[in-house]
Amino acid sequence: MTYDLYYWPSIPGRGEYVRLVLEAAGLAYRDMARLPASKGGGIEAMFAFMKGEKGAHRPFAPPFLVSGDIVVSQTAVIAAFLGERHGLAPEGEADRLFARSIAVTTADFVAEAHDTHHPVGSGLYYDEQKAEAARRAEGFRAERMPKFLGWYEALLTANPAASGWLVGKAPSYADLGLFQTVAGLRYAFPRRMQSLAGSYPRVEALCARLAEEPRIAAYLASDRRLAFNEDGIFRRYLELDGE
Amino acid sequence: MTYDLYYWPSIPGRGEYVRLVLEAAGLAYRDMARLPASKGGGIEAMFAFMKGEKGAHRPFAPPFLVSGDIVVSQTAVIAAFLGERHGLAPEGEADRLFARSIAVTTADFVAEAHDTHHPVGSGLYYDEQKAEAARRAEGFRAERMPKFLGWYEALLTANPAASGWLVGKAPSYADLGLFQTVAGLRYAFPRRMQSLAGSYPRVEALCARLAEEPRIAAYLASDRRLAFNEDGIFRRYLELDGE
Repeated sequence: MTYDLYYWPSIPGRGEYVRLVLEAAGLAYRDMARLPASKGGGIEAMFAFMKGEKGAHRPFAPPFLVSGDIVVSQTAVIAAFLGERHGLAPEGEADRLFARSIAVTTADFVAEAHDTHHPVGSGLYYDEQKAEAARRAEGFRAERMPKFLGWYEALLTANPAASGWLVGKAPSYADLGLFQTVAGLRYAFPRRMQSLAGSYPRVEALCARLAEEPRIAAYLASDRRLAFNEDGIFRRYLELDGE
Repeated sequence: MTYDLYYWPSIPGRGEYVRLVLEAAGLAYRDMARLPASKGGGIEAMFAFMKGEKGAHRPFAPPFLVSGDIVVSQTAVIAAFLGERHGLAPEGEADRLFARSIAVTTADFVAEAHDTHHPVGSGLYYDEQKAEAARRAEGFRAERMPKFLGWYEALLTANPAASGWLVGKAPSYADLGLFQTVAGLRYAFPRRMQSLAGSYPRVEALCARLAEEPRIAAYLASDRRLAFNEDGIFRRYLELDGE
């Protein structure tokens, strides 16, 4: 079984949510857009799928994952697919469905984080929407961050397995999604995250614990892990981070 | 097997994507928030789940579906769960995964439609963000609507089954999601949709065909079908519909 991940090569972005599951499960994969064209990689190879040149299962946008005749897109769908196949999902139908629900909710949270710097449109530059961004970021910091983070904290508190993971007894792709989102928020909103430090102790513990898992730790220290930057989903624009 | 749907009682919104799958599959269900409290329904019954009073599988937001010990949230996850269980999903792993990818992409499209009237924040009134809404709607009409609708058209063109459905040989929850989204766009952006009429003939044919499916036709004529209105996701604000 081979896995080819297609995503923009220069940002962690949404691709990172897939990459983390691949790495945590110890799976071999190729990060196609970061490979040279001579190895079948590059941006053009990615666009070929999106233009329908590689078959009927044409993704709307990256990231997408290709494995044999499977072409699956959308971060939460890919992560659930990999997690359920490779031991990074809870057992039992109710827990599995709830993990999928969590992952899509995390994708919503990530979209809202993105929209703090692009509230008017992804086709425009940030400089063209700074006034709107300031307003949107204010609500995101004041209302949305506590609402989402408080929800994860409540799930960790209520999990009957008392495992320290969001659902079930063991870490799953849902936990990895929260880990990456918190990392992104710490990058993009350092002051706000500092002011919230200690408010969500179980969320913080989950993130710290995942960072120490051997496969994750090795990955984070590798050059496969891309740094956050101002072309991505999570951007450090200090004017959006409040006082 | 019983299904209880929880969603805001006065708008079609995201709940409609679930309701359509329940209706198209001919499933018995209760629309809980529209039932009186004496029958276990009402808004408070919905909030009880969201406050964690009904167990650890606490949804972030409606809609959510309850069946025995299952509590599943997020439109696309619920629709896939029901579709795969009840004959409204394609056969075969690759097609099933692609249908899930489509449904989450449709949810993204719906979120963008919502954000045309709430680009700054869902916690504010439309009147507090009309200037930003005008800008966001402009990009939505000019760029995003053609991009998404063109993608569905391309999928219908490329489907090797040539069935007139998005994936596989038979109608699935992915088709129902497109149907409802087009209905919402026709309500919210009548002028823009008129100007696009004929540009996506396969999308139009799919919608017309679904509206004539006996179960769907009966549902659309019933009082279970809620009308679009200006409290929902798709709102008719003519100033956002362009010239």
